[in-house]
Amino acid sequence: MVKHLGKDSIEPKLIPGKYQFYTMRYCPYAQRVQLVLNAKKIPHDPVFINLTEKPEWYLKMFPAGKVPALTYEGKFLSESLLLADFLDEQHTQIPLWSNSPLQKILDKIFIESFGKVASSFYKFMMTGSKLEKNNFDELVEYIKLIESELKIRSTKYFGGESPKMVDYMIWPWFERIDCIGIFSKNLFIFPFDKFPKLAEWRNAMITDEAVASYYLSPEKHAQHFINRKAGLPAAFDF
Amino acid sequence: MVKHLGKDSIEPKLIPGKYQFYTMRYCPYAQRVQLVLNAKKIPHDPVFINLTEKPEWYLKMFPAGKVPALTYEGKFLSESLLLADFLDEQHTQIPLWSNSPLQKILDKIFIESFGKVASSFYKFMMTGSKLEKNNFDELVEYIKLIESELKIRSTKYFGGESPKMVDYMIWPWFERIDCIGIFSKNLFIFPFDKFPKLAEWRNAMITDEAVASYYLSPEKHAQHFINRKAGLPAAFDF
Repeated sequence: MVKHLGKDSIEPKLIPGKYQFYTMRYCPYAQRVQLVLNAKKIPHDPVFINLTEKPEWYLKMFPAGKVPALTYEGKFLSESLLLADFLDEQHTQIPLWSNSPLQKILDKIFIESFGKVASSFYKFMMTGSKLEKNNFDELVEYIKLIESELKIRSTKYFGGESPKMVDYMIWPWFERIDCIGIFSKNLFIFPFDKFPKLAEWRNAMITDEAVASYYLSPEKHAQHFINRKAGLPAAFDF
Repeated sequence: MVKHLGKDSIEPKLIPGKYQFYTMRYCPYAQRVQLVLNAKKIPHDPVFINLTEKPEWYLKMFPAGKVPALTYEGKFLSESLLLADFLDEQHTQIPLWSNSPLQKILDKIFIESFGKVASSFYKFMMTGSKLEKNNFDELVEYIKLIESELKIRSTKYFGGESPKMVDYMIWPWFERIDCIGIFSKNLFIFPFDKFPKLAEWRNAMITDEAVASYYLSPEKHAQHFINRKAGLPAAFDF
């Protein structure tokens, strides 16, 4: 269990030579940056922020009060995709973006289009008091496009023969999709059997070191969504 | 005058070895990419798209039907900021992004925050039948932050001693701000006298070759907004 810092918390001291990484344990956007930090083995010091009752020192530093964010050389940096680019350029060991500008923009356009999966997943999970079949069907429709993309690429991972930036940027939502069964008490089960390429990819991703070391079980993710729906804070520690 | 291709137009032939650049003469996002193409002297073939009555061949190629977009090696590429990155990486002559990853992300965060200026400008110009003082005041408030940023940077341009990516990404809206006086029949005049740094920057930008060769006068921009408000097509040729 990690402890999220809330309203009256004290700002943790900066550790020189390390990034201060502001995050929230259940935020998929923050997880993107965590995966990049892990994959590139970049020293960092995570600070978990309670997003429901934000620390005053954090709001003073960053009025938008969002995560993920990094401090570096006294500068405050934010936005998951911008941070991913920055870390890949600043730490050139273990490059995660393709060195082909064309492949890189195609990956970025794909990641942008993946936004539909992210938003339809949250719509299904969080809208109303009852889970809706049409929202679930919409999510499944969008996932079809992701399966097709992997088929067209005909590689094990979206980024080639090992996980690359494009894989890490979409992974957080796939980690969460597995919790639909538990969350819905088996009313809805995500049909991975209909998506053989994605199912293989998912199984391979889970064993990747960067992913595995930050992985949360479907039970944990389901509990987070149950807590959120019950009106508990966004960073409820359990 | 450029002719925008509409619903029943025929798809222009691709010219080998050149980018096909899909654009609209009055679109500020498309202008961003045009400025990058100009500044880096990249051969390209512009295709002007009528966004109100979109060509069928264009929608077939790109269902979202937006501009700007580029075709390259049979791939269809879109999104102004992604295209700017791609062109800067693919054509390394005359680099427009800083070679410091930290400065690059700071510039990108600044460009993202500039979105508030872009949206408040359009809100002021296009909302309702009458221009509203509170929308104008909001725009001026946001511009204050841009003036402060240039002051803090204490360089001639946002990107240093010559125009760089950060300057080109925000320029299209400053070219348009000058048309407020004409558009509002002098009811509102943008107070450049209150923003001495920005006024100097604006005067310098207008003489930059990449900017000057695609520059439209305040009269032209005003006419475009007048046409839009009268319900004429987004790419009305005049």
